[in-house]
Amino acid sequence: MAPSLAERDSASEPNPILVEVWRGNVVESVHRGAISVMSDRGESIAAMGDIARPVFPRSAVKMIQALPLIESGAADRFRLTDVQVALACASHSGEREHVRTVESWLNMMALTPGALECGAHAPFDRGAADELVRSGVAPSALHNNCSGKHAGFLATAMHAGDDPHGYVEASHPVQRRVSLALGEMMGADVALAPCGTDGCGIPAFAVPLQAIALGMAKLGSGHGSAPVRAAASRRIVTAMMALPWLVSGTGRFDQRAMMLGGGRFATKMGAEGVHAAIIPGRGLGIAIKIDDGAQRAAEVAMAAVLVKLGVLDGGEAEALCRVRLRNSKGREVGRIVAAGEGDGSSTPRRNGFVGVSRASAEAG
Amino acid sequence: MAPSLAERDSASEPNPILVEVWRGNVVESVHRGAISVMSDRGESIAAMGDIARPVFPRSAVKMIQALPLIESGAADRFRLTDVQVALACASHSGEREHVRTVESWLNMMALTPGALECGAHAPFDRGAADELVRSGVAPSALHNNCSGKHAGFLATAMHAGDDPHGYVEASHPVQRRVSLALGEMMGADVALAPCGTDGCGIPAFAVPLQAIALGMAKLGSGHGSAPVRAAASRRIVTAMMALPWLVSGTGRFDQRAMMLGGGRFATKMGAEGVHAAIIPGRGLGIAIKIDDGAQRAAEVAMAAVLVKLGVLDGGEAEALCRVRLRNSKGREVGRIVAAGEGDGSSTPRRNGFVGVSRASAEAG
Repeated sequence: MAPSLAERDSASEPNPILVEVWRGNVVESVHRGAISVMSDRGESIAAMGDIARPVFPRSAVKMIQALPLIESGAADRFRLTDVQVALACASHSGEREHVRTVESWLNMMALTPGALECGAHAPFDRGAADELVRSGVAPSALHNNCSGKHAGFLATAMHAGDDPHGYVEASHPVQRRVSLALGEMMGADVALAPCGTDGCGIPAFAVPLQAIALGMAKLGSGHGSAPVRAAASRRIVTAMMALPWLVSGTGRFDQRAMMLGGGRFATKMGAEGVHAAIIPGRGLGIAIKIDDGAQRAAEVAMAAVLVKLGVLDGGEAEALCRVRLRNSKGREVGRIVAAGEGDGSSTPRRNGFVGVSRASAEAG
Repeated sequence: MAPSLAERDSASEPNPILVEVWRGNVVESVHRGAISVMSDRGESIAAMGDIARPVFPRSAVKMIQALPLIESGAADRFRLTDVQVALACASHSGEREHVRTVESWLNMMALTPGALECGAHAPFDRGAADELVRSGVAPSALHNNCSGKHAGFLATAMHAGDDPHGYVEASHPVQRRVSLALGEMMGADVALAPCGTDGCGIPAFAVPLQAIALGMAKLGSGHGSAPVRAAASRRIVTAMMALPWLVSGTGRFDQRAMMLGGGRFATKMGAEGVHAAIIPGRGLGIAIKIDDGAQRAAEVAMAAVLVKLGVLDGGEAEALCRVRLRNSKGREVGRIVAAGEGDGSSTPRRNGFVGVSRASAEAG
């Protein structure tokens, strides 16, 4: 039986503080978590906190979940390009072009949006959500951030000749293929992993953070994979880095990070404070879990790790994370920073990876 | 110099886990924090975590910030009723009636919304925000959740004959009266407290959590206050409990909690995971700060404390917190619970106040 985070807490050290939220000269809130950087050979390159405890990777492993779409031949059968492959990995913002592209893809397969089993939610993008409100149209499954992934599941099922109905269930051949790929890429025994249901209805498996990082590293380099998988991995990572907007959406972290990265890395958020990244040229994978599930912290921590690994510069990282907190009148009242970076004034940087802070607060 | 949370972290124990987020049979995320329950005599009735470290109370002390409005005679001068007094303490949802009532109040004082210095943001209430989008009207300062508090500041300034302009500045007589009330009620030296700027532009002072709880206890009973303050305190707490919707908004925690409370207690949220409560009949005050700033956790912890203190029953608490996590198709996939309450199945309750969990996860 896998230990829960709470059980572990009473037995061992809590995870370190990774991110601080400053208001004036005071740390108002903090975010704890764990970080794993793994090589495609399975070496732990850097780590903070407990990287062995099982966590749900959520949407951060959509790239691995997309492998069967390509490996099965479904992607070629339906003549999918980088556009659909990027959408299969996406937690998209439900903007007009995301929705239109998923719908076209379904049309190509002679399916309607009714085939999607992901449920509906309002677009992540504020403007897109407002546009729906103005036009009096209810959000559909197409607007669900996972609709591209689900279109990929449908393609996989149809190509294999499986009844697509119920493709979200653990017992459906599509999810069995997906589980197999997850287990193989992460070196984790998914059959025994603690299991839950993801936001879009598919099974979610809790695995060690280091397993997620390893899966990312292997996706990036193809090391240790059979040729078919290595090619599928390359195709997925290439599509993400080529089309970051499709993977994410206007102004969001992954879109902007991959634009800045210019092919050096791919990043992918997951719900509840998970973030993953792939650095293909270095054979490295990164996985981050913020204990409390805060996305604001996962983004700041991810940017700090990318800086530390030399694939992003400090100025880019700051712009990326929108770390400046502004009040309703637009005045800057605080900042969100990686622990150890203090309030951005006189605090010395730490030697640590993303160190536990001892930043001094200048009391007002 | 007050220690920051991060400094403290390396020197002493981290705060305990107060709330767990379960997905399936796994703890997916956790929230740490501190809880203080104080009597109006200054006795610590119950405590978890570090209740001495300074935290920003944010909007949880709007009731104390409203004292000068009443004590100065401004409330009587402008013939304010429970309606305006409740709004002065509100973090309202910007629904039509909230906005209309603040605007009427300003009209009563021959002011326009342009006098408000709180800035604008979209209404908290989704329906109200959508209504603005549909009508093509931009959110105004009236929609700011703090607009009632600011109307109260304007009333205080005008009654005293002060120029209302700049009433948000620390040096303005209004904020000096407010700071004085905060210091007196919380027994804290506000002049030396770490200071920041709140979301609505006024000064924010970081004080120990136990000081916030003490202030709440004294507000509820009037113990130790001069007759004018005791009467003002009673008027404020009575108005909140009589008109919970005005203090909060449709479906929100404070509105529903005070409806259930039926005059037994008043609750008030603040940003970044702060929650305060007053139990007037018992002379008790409660203050909670979630380390990571998560409101979902502050609400669950507050409900658990109210249950523990016997002013709310367990079924009410569960309904109140909407602890069931549902996916996009409406299926229950998890729960948010006070630590030690496990996944709601077979896990035994702990003896602790809101104990640090050792709940066992039944691995799937």
